[in-house]
Amino acid sequence: MKKVEDYMTSIPDFPKEGIIFRDITSVLENKDGLKLAIDEMNSLLEGVEFDCIAGAESRGFIFGAPIAYMNNKGFVPVRKEGKLPRETVKASYDLEYGSATIEIHKDAIKPGDKVVLVDDLIATGGTMEATAKLIEQLGGEVVKMIFLIELVDLKGREVLSKYDIASVIKYEGE
Amino acid sequence: MKKVEDYMTSIPDFPKEGIIFRDITSVLENKDGLKLAIDEMNSLLEGVEFDCIAGAESRGFIFGAPIAYMNNKGFVPVRKEGKLPRETVKASYDLEYGSATIEIHKDAIKPGDKVVLVDDLIATGGTMEATAKLIEQLGGEVVKMIFLIELVDLKGREVLSKYDIASVIKYEGE
Repeated sequence: MKKVEDYMTSIPDFPKEGIIFRDITSVLENKDGLKLAIDEMNSLLEGVEFDCIAGAESRGFIFGAPIAYMNNKGFVPVRKEGKLPRETVKASYDLEYGSATIEIHKDAIKPGDKVVLVDDLIATGGTMEATAKLIEQLGGEVVKMIFLIELVDLKGREVLSKYDIASVIKYEGE
Repeated sequence: MKKVEDYMTSIPDFPKEGIIFRDITSVLENKDGLKLAIDEMNSLLEGVEFDCIAGAESRGFIFGAPIAYMNNKGFVPVRKEGKLPRETVKASYDLEYGSATIEIHKDAIKPGDKVVLVDDLIATGGTMEATAKLIEQLGGEVVKMIFLIELVDLKGREVLSKYDIASVIKYEGE
């Protein structure tokens, strides 16, 4: 039986030498790959009680929305600055070059809400750390973070050590 | 029984005077709203035979991915220029100010593939027209376009008159 990673295309030296780029689009574009990826991510939530799923623009939308739907929960989009029409809270985080700002609607999270964060990939953990801060600022609790891919050597787990993290595929020692 | 539009927030004079902004995030963020929106969009595909779903970054991802998953089809992400790692085809289209370029992977569509396009909203039809051209350039056939919202007065249907279009909510005469 095939595994999710069998559908993944790995592109050596992209975007620069020495990096192996894991291309999730080859998983998504295959019907069996997409089903397997979402089912396996969803199985990471077994036994977890939660109120909603939050996912960051834009690849977090691809996994977060179906997982919210199949669990009959709401989906809270975390967006790049300037795209949400109502009142928001914002957080900035560093990128390799420069920084990025993300935001969520103030009324999307109610105090006490148990929130699951979903993304395609955990690398250094910067986006997820900023997202978790926004959730907590609104009184929510991040009860789990789930990822399709974990790039172990980039040590996102250390940055996010206070959270419960799970991933479907771990790449390390590359 | 509630309808999808009961979960929609309408923001008058946003982003400018005279425009009523339809805010889908209030639908997504509610568990019943999300379920209803996706189920109703999916029901527009009844009787349609297709091979895959394509959706444009980034709100097309929110609806396209779950609908692909529940129909056991692949999901082809249509992305803004420069984000896809493998060989692509590109199309540009006009926006109110300036223009935008989108692309899809060359190998995501095979000649003869029957493709459904999914997006949150049809307004002037520019993004969908560009997306359809890319699909056709690769030998695919756009068999249906489905939307949560149709802004009837903006006449996207005229631009896309050769396609089979369906939407869940129609706003007009505003």
